[in-house]
Amino acid sequence: MKCKKCGRKAVIRLRAHNISLCKDDFLSFVLNRVRQTIKRYRLFHPGERILVAISGGKDSLAVFDILQRLGYPVEGFHIDLGIDGFSQRAREVAVRFLAERRASVHLYSLQEEVGASVPQIASQLRRPPCSLCGMMRRYIMNRFACENGFSALVTGHNLDDEGATLLGNLANWQIGYLARQSPLLPATHPRLVKKVKPLILLSEREVLAYCLLRDIKYHEERCPHSKGATSLRHKEVLNLLEYYSPGSKIRFYQEFIKNQGIFPSLDPHEMRECVVCGFPTTRDKCQFCTVLEKFRS
Amino acid sequence: MKCKKCGRKAVIRLRAHNISLCKDDFLSFVLNRVRQTIKRYRLFHPGERILVAISGGKDSLAVFDILQRLGYPVEGFHIDLGIDGFSQRAREVAVRFLAERRASVHLYSLQEEVGASVPQIASQLRRPPCSLCGMMRRYIMNRFACENGFSALVTGHNLDDEGATLLGNLANWQIGYLARQSPLLPATHPRLVKKVKPLILLSEREVLAYCLLRDIKYHEERCPHSKGATSLRHKEVLNLLEYYSPGSKIRFYQEFIKNQGIFPSLDPHEMRECVVCGFPTTRDKCQFCTVLEKFRS
Repeated sequence: MKCKKCGRKAVIRLRAHNISLCKDDFLSFVLNRVRQTIKRYRLFHPGERILVAISGGKDSLAVFDILQRLGYPVEGFHIDLGIDGFSQRAREVAVRFLAERRASVHLYSLQEEVGASVPQIASQLRRPPCSLCGMMRRYIMNRFACENGFSALVTGHNLDDEGATLLGNLANWQIGYLARQSPLLPATHPRLVKKVKPLILLSEREVLAYCLLRDIKYHEERCPHSKGATSLRHKEVLNLLEYYSPGSKIRFYQEFIKNQGIFPSLDPHEMRECVVCGFPTTRDKCQFCTVLEKFRS
Repeated sequence: MKCKKCGRKAVIRLRAHNISLCKDDFLSFVLNRVRQTIKRYRLFHPGERILVAISGGKDSLAVFDILQRLGYPVEGFHIDLGIDGFSQRAREVAVRFLAERRASVHLYSLQEEVGASVPQIASQLRRPPCSLCGMMRRYIMNRFACENGFSALVTGHNLDDEGATLLGNLANWQIGYLARQSPLLPATHPRLVKKVKPLILLSEREVLAYCLLRDIKYHEERCPHSKGATSLRHKEVLNLLEYYSPGSKIRFYQEFIKNQGIFPSLDPHEMRECVVCGFPTTRDKCQFCTVLEKFRS
């Protein structure tokens, strides 16, 4: 198996693109892919202050590494969710990675700021931890980015993540979600920071290979709560489709984005401001403040 | 495992509907399902003359059996495609089944009418036989139904068939096809007969169980050309989704039909009439006549 670019020994075969590449050419391929994504979907404008959400997993470290190499001024933000040993180990990985990159690191501890961990809140409120955790992380990241003058918030979502979300939305024809699923969510309110996903054209396998070949030490553990998550099942279904027809995943996602305009935005709610924290919400009180209030009562 | 309706011993568990049923209640369930489908999508109007396409496979025999039991005046139409022994065996099954039902049977032999079989035409034209066969069958069925005064042409497409087609159309975002995929294709031209699919809310497994429990002797062979067909792969992908989340398939299809209006019909062609045969086409000469002409030249 030879590299299609230089003829040296290839280290990876990319069936979706019908090429094999050596280490150096694969690393360039990944950087080019992200550069293209940024250009095609106009993810950044000049002079942007960029905050990258760093969970410690492969995707978050890869997107930070790549943006830094492409010359973007990036800073890291890590949330300690207080999940048993999992969160401590994730935090150590995130802090070490950002220190090695001489990057600014912002740490947020749910235990310190709110006085409880995600599992404690979920258990007291008898809610599934994953949806609660997702909602809280989105709130905390947006609020932190906003209050600290960042103009873009980057997450490491890859093609498999977005494909699985798309399949899930289509499986139930969630028209409203379909209208909003995008590589870029613009700042539609002064206190909503733009959300950006630069890795959406790279598959999970490509991101993993990038980390391995760059020797990026990421946090390998799966969150103990993620077992049996629907998104993992949807990823498996898409991988079967990809196995049968290489390139299916990227075509499925890109053609969707091209045609997304046909899904009417079903959001009739005016954006309001939470009576407690002042951040945007579609209700009187935002979900984050509602959860905290219930937990403390 | 007990029947949810009557408490007797169940013979089948329907995970998508979260019920188990005995033989009699399952047979009623299938009939009711088709009755609902006909009502919900307004498939027939009173006084309709109905022609059922009978390949000899389980779906075509099941749809004929069910419509006959529901009191519709149905006649059978079988096309002998001239595929080795496969077509002779299919024809025998179809003829025997319709004779037992004391139903009118109309036979069309490609060899007799056109002077060649599907494999012969495909091989001479160097075209994949499956798409050619599909196009020719659609033409022949419509023309026969039209010339013999039928107002509706019924096919046995089931939920797995339609789900696989839907997934294929979504995988490539074929907007034009998405706009047209439907349980009922109306007669938009005097020489286009209405196309109707009464089994679309029944899964392949349900149709199979119906045939087994009714002791319907169907033609079990797969067409020798169908191996590796994309539709079979898409069915497998959907079955994985269904395995993880029972009811996914029916939800995926029904919610699509509800929301189908968002896909703009991309057919800018005026319907024209073929210069050779006079049947509707989007070109000067229809595909069927084009193929025959090329084959004969």
